[in-house]
Formats: sequence, C-alpha cells, structure tokens
Amino acid sequence: MTAAGLLGDIAGVGADPRRGGFSRHGFDRSELELREWFRAAAVARGLDVETDRNGTMWAWWGPPGDGAVVTGSHLDSVPGGGAYDGPLGVTSALVAVDLLRARGFTPGKPLAIAVFAEEEGGRFGVACLGSRLMTGALDPDAARRLTDPDGVTLADAVRAAGLDPAGLGPDPVAMARIGVFVELHVEQGKGLVDLGAPVAVASSILAHGRWRFSFAGEGNHAGATLLTDRRDPMLPAAQVVLAARRAASGIEGARATVGKVVPNPGGTNVIASTVDVWLDARAEDDFRTRAVVADISDAARVAAEEEGCTVTVTEESYGDTVIFDPALRDDLAATLGDVPALPTGAGHDAGILAAHRPTAMLFVRNPTGISHAPAEFAEASDCAAGAAALADVLAHLAR
Amino acid sequence: MTAAGLLGDIAGVGADPRRGGFSRHGFDRSELELREWFRAAAVARGLDVETDRNGTMWAWWGPPGDGAVVTGSHLDSVPGGGAYDGPLGVTSALVAVDLLRARGFTPGKPLAIAVFAEEEGGRFGVACLGSRLMTGALDPDAARRLTDPDGVTLADAVRAAGLDPAGLGPDPVAMARIGVFVELHVEQGKGLVDLGAPVAVASSILAHGRWRFSFAGEGNHAGATLLTDRRDPMLPAAQVVLAARRAASGIEGARATVGKVVPNPGGTNVIASTVDVWLDARAEDDFRTRAVVADISDAARVAAEEEGCTVTVTEESYGDTVIFDPALRDDLAATLGDVPALPTGAGHDAGILAAHRPTAMLFVRNPTGISHAPAEFAEASDCAAGAAALADVLAHLAR
Repeated sequence: MTAAGLLGDIAGVGADPRRGGFSRHGFDRSELELREWFRAAAVARGLDVETDRNGTMWAWWGPPGDGAVVTGSHLDSVPGGGAYDGPLGVTSALVAVDLLRARGFTPGKPLAIAVFAEEEGGRFGVACLGSRLMTGALDPDAARRLTDPDGVTLADAVRAAGLDPAGLGPDPVAMARIGVFVELHVEQGKGLVDLGAPVAVASSILAHGRWRFSFAGEGNHAGATLLTDRRDPMLPAAQVVLAARRAASGIEGARATVGKVVPNPGGTNVIASTVDVWLDARAEDDFRTRAVVADISDAARVAAEEEGCTVTVTEESYGDTVIFDPALRDDLAATLGDVPALPTGAGHDAGILAAHRPTAMLFVRNPTGISHAPAEFAEASDCAAGAAALADVLAHLAR
Repeated sequence: MTAAGLLGDIAGVGADPRRGGFSRHGFDRSELELREWFRAAAVARGLDVETDRNGTMWAWWGPPGDGAVVTGSHLDSVPGGGAYDGPLGVTSALVAVDLLRARGFTPGKPLAIAVFAEEEGGRFGVACLGSRLMTGALDPDAARRLTDPDGVTLADAVRAAGLDPAGLGPDPVAMARIGVFVELHVEQGKGLVDLGAPVAVASSILAHGRWRFSFAGEGNHAGATLLTDRRDPMLPAAQVVLAARRAASGIEGARATVGKVVPNPGGTNVIASTVDVWLDARAEDDFRTRAVVADISDAARVAAEEEGCTVTVTEESYGDTVIFDPALRDDLAATLGDVPALPTGAGHDAGILAAHRPTAMLFVRNPTGISHAPAEFAEASDCAAGAAALADVLAHLAR
C-alpha cells in the first residue's frame, strides 16, 4: 500500500459536506474513528500501540525504550481542511515501516510512529495541544478548562475518549523515549514547485500565535435603533480585519489573518451584543510578531472606543520562531542526496518538540501550494518519494 | 391572568443559554411547543383553533366568517431575542378576550386571534414568512426551497410539522376572513418613554429589507500563504460592515446593520474561501433605501475586486414603506382617548397585511427601547394597559 493509497482508506471519515473537505477535530467522532483506523493499520504491521496520558498514540516497532527514533504527525484537520495536512505524515510513516521491512532492515534503536492530538486546534482553539501538554508548554489546568464551540470542556472530551483528565500535562516518561523526532508533512506553499523537487527538509518555522479579540457593545433592534444610539461591536470587529492586513503589510514576511468571526446573537435583524474575532499572526521573529499584534490591538481599542464598545485581547497560543537543529537538518539533507531546505509559515508538533529534542521535518511537494482547504494536494508519485525519503531517514537514524 | 403573567407560562420554552434570551424559530421544537401552548390557552377560553395551509393559527370566538376582526402576532423570536417581541401581542389578545368576556361583551362580527409563522425570519431568512405567503408577497416555490442553517428546506420543515408543503402560498379564503387586523407589539424604541405614555397607535413602518453579500476568494493556509498571494474574502466582507454605517449615516433616518457574518470554513488558521454577510437596511422610503443598498453594493464590488474576490448580492426580502390606514389609526387613537401615533423602524406581519386590508398596530412602552435582545422589557402595568386598550379596540371594531 502507498502513502497516497492509505489516505484513500480514510477518505470517508469526517467529510464535511457543508464546508467541503474534512472536519476532523481532537477527540471528536471522526478523529476517534481515525485513531481506530491507525491502531488497526499499526497492529497489522506488527507494531504495538499504546495511548499516553495526553492522548498521543505510539506504535512501536519492537520494545518501547528511551532515546527512540520517532516519526509521525496528526490526524485532525482544520474545519473544512484538506486530506494531506497531518494524515500524510502518518500514512507515510506506515509505508516507511513497510519499505524498511521489505528491505530487511532491523532498527538498531527503538522506533515509533506517534500521532498527536488536536494539532490544528480546530476544536479547542490551541494548536499543537497534545505536544504542548506533553512538553509542558501548556498549563494542564488551563487546558482542562478549554471549551469547544458547544461548551464541552477538554476535560470532558478526553474523559469521553477514555482518558483521565487528571493525567493531562508534562510527561517526562514519554519525553525520555524521544531521542529524535522527524515529521513528514505536505508543503503548505510552492517552494518545492519553484525548485522542481519532490522533497525538502525544513529549516525554520515563523513565530506565530492566535489572539481572540472580544468586543462587547449593546444588542438591539437593527431597524428601530437610531445610528446615534448604537454601540455595535461589529464595527470595531471589521476594523480588526482591515488592521490585520495593514499591519502585516508593513513588516517584511509577516502574515496576519482573520478567518473566524462569531457575532452573538448572530441574527440578520439584530445589532450584535458581542463579536469575537480570532487573529492568526506570524512573522520572522518574536519582536516582529509582537509588533504586528500590538499594532492591530491598538487599532481595535481605538475602534472600540469610537463605537462605545469594549475590547479584551486574549492570547490563546503562541510559539516563538523555531530553527530546526542545523546538524540534523544537514545530515538528513545529505542522506537524501542534498535535497533543499525550506522555511515554513505553518506551525507543527515538530516545532513544539524542537525546543526539547533534535527535530526535523520533511516536506512533500504541493502543486498549488494550497493548504487548509479542500484543494490541498500532492501527486501520488511525490507522496511515494516522500515515504521513501522518510524510510531512508529512519534507517539512517535507527541504524 | 395578565398579559405579562402569561409570558411567564412560556418563559422556559426556547431559552438560549449560549446567546442569552430566547431562540424560537419557525417550526422548530420550541416554536411548535409554543403553538401547543397557544392551542391549549385558546381552547381553555372556548375558542376554536385551526391552522391554515401557511401555518398560521387562528383561534375563533364564535363561528369563523368573512370580514372578521382579527388581532394577533407571532411566537417566534430572533436568535437570542427578548420575551416580548411577538408573544406580548398573543398573550394580550388572549387577555383581551378575557376582559371582553368579563364585560359581558358579545362580538357583533366574527373575531379571531391569529399567530403567524416565522415573523423574524430567524430560521429561513425571510421575515414575515407566514403573512408573505398568505398574501402572495412571496413566491411559494422560492419559499419551499429556502433552507435553514442546517440545510433543512422550508418544505421539509413544514412537512415535519404536519403541513403539506404543496399548500403553501396565496390563501384567498384566509384573506377574505380578515376584515380588519390589529397587532399589539412592544415598542422597539423609546418614543413612548419620551412621551410619558403607556400605549400608542402606529403611524408607519420604514421601508426595509435584507440582502446577502456572498464573497468568494481562495481558501488557504493562514501562516504559509504570502500576503501577495491571497484572495481573502474576509477583507471585502469587513468593508461592507463599515460601508453600511457610512452609507446610512449619509441619509436622514436611514439604518444599515450587519448582524450576521458567516466565514467558510471558519477556522482560526485558515484564510476563508467564502464569507457571507447579511445586510439589514431601512429608510423612510423606497428611494432612500435603494440608495443605501446601492452605495454599500458599490463599496462591496470595489473591495472584492481589490482583493481578487467575487461578490454576488441577493435580495432576501424587501418591503416598501407602510403607512397604516389613516382613518383606522385616527379612529383607534380616539377610541383610546387620543393616544399618540408613532412610526417604527421595525417590520411586522401587520405591515404585510396593510397592503391588502385596513390594518393598525398598538405599541406598549419599552423603558429602555431595547429590543431583539434579552434586555427587551415592558412593565406589567404597561402590559395591562396594552391589553385593556386592545380589548377596547376589539370591542369598538366588532361592535
């Protein structure tokens, strides 16, 4: 079975007819179904599967042990996401095991495939939830109180999935087992298209985070309320959207995006009483990212005051710039025949682990560069090249 | 029982813990429960209840007949709406019947209480759905295809409620029965507060409608996509919010509001592929209302083009200015001891019927003027004054 072919096995899980693409979120029905699929696929390969206390699944080739060579990714998606972001890293890992077995390879070190929970933060708002919990980058008390759009807490969601919410948090046992981590991922830009190559290693991840702007005004009737009597939070919310583009445009390489806006109550003939706006902001370093967010926050405060509204800005998650271990990056690029190194604007569990362990990523060419959307794609031949490269890398690291 | 007291009977139906207030929409579980409550309350008063083919409920005092005196309102709400908008007109009608009975009054003409379906358009997007269908102001084929946010068509919703979708549409039999229509409603402004009076008659309704602006761009990754590569429909959507305020500010008495914005897919780390924005616009007359909408539409097209997006503008509903029958208005004001006459910016079923029958409205004082929000309120003493006024009016008309 190929990496692209294995994606076909799960193409019916979590399809989202309203948004298009897939909506698979941490510990929801479709993500739990994908976990069962992964368990079966791993067991069929003679791997031993366990789930740790942060919901990360581990499939071990041979006995678990410290200092293992670990690969993997995640199975959740953004709302209405593509088929490749996350699952390609998991299916490629399974195929890499097949390839290594076919080559008669036996690992000289423990080797595992890891599947992290809620990498996209599509349900509970914090990206890389599982890896942040495991590494201690996220306070477990705060995590347990996170709620999804239906008001379900993370504590309740993991309990429903058979985990103990009290067990969430830093896991030194799991961390000790990771000697090196390599994540394969579909590229989320056109770097490989421009280079004419199927596979690259990652050089860095932009600093990035999420901020919630909560505007409060006064709910009222859209027809009967004079313009001069209004305190409509939709107006400063709209200013944040425009300020995000303006602020990011002023800083080389910065990106700022509003993809989610929730007015309450959300009726056509109702002036909203509150509007929540989520900002995704990224830049080359912490200083530039903070500058973009400060600029947008200033604009939000001015616009809120002009309309007689209030605003609170909450940082929901943040990660500083990641420079992947240069020695490991160069070692893997050389192992693969001097493949190129590319930066990315996208966050990954590998970016969280990079603060603690030697960590690397492999990117697979994406012909349109589109990601987080149904059009996300990689040619089957490039997926095969990616899985073969991953097998080479694992053989090299676990020799 | 008083009109305010009867509202207490239904205070548990359709409460919306997330938005606050009530979410009761046409043919949903809570509105169907309110229909059963109304049926029981009417039967308890010896009224005969029937539901016509557009889902309007009729409670008859004595045998149904043409040229009846009809009062009533609606039981649905906006999302997260107040307790009074709609239900106060229904409970006041029931109390008016009690008062007339207690006075020993016997109608000299047929008399009925009518409850119209989906007045707010909170589920299917078209305000005054029931009265528009009955009067022929809404094409029944188009109506049957309307969908709610879950994709349920109006045809399916009415079928589930026990109605035949084929029966929706103009109903000359029902229309012939209406000799005169009087709707009591909580005021949705502070006109009566300023005048120091508990009850007024209505003079006019602003021209008003709803327009959906559908922007389409290109869904992509919020971190990995360069600003220069983006076609983000959230930007022109934000411009519509600002253009609405700007355009309405330029025309005396005009109002324009965006209370509902739906980005798709709506993920924090995702550039939206499409964004729908709903505009509610109103002004003194058709010309001014059209001018406001044209101004906003122009801004939408310019902003969409700048971002490489497309926009389509769809008129979801529209009603021209309503001037309530001046002779009837003056007759009722005199009957009530020269109560004041007030205009309103809010649409009503009475506004739809006014094109076909002598129609009037009574307003009950609202101490804050807030409506379409949980803070919507009327003092019990003012509700009692409203019900007594309605009884006087019905006795005068059905003498």
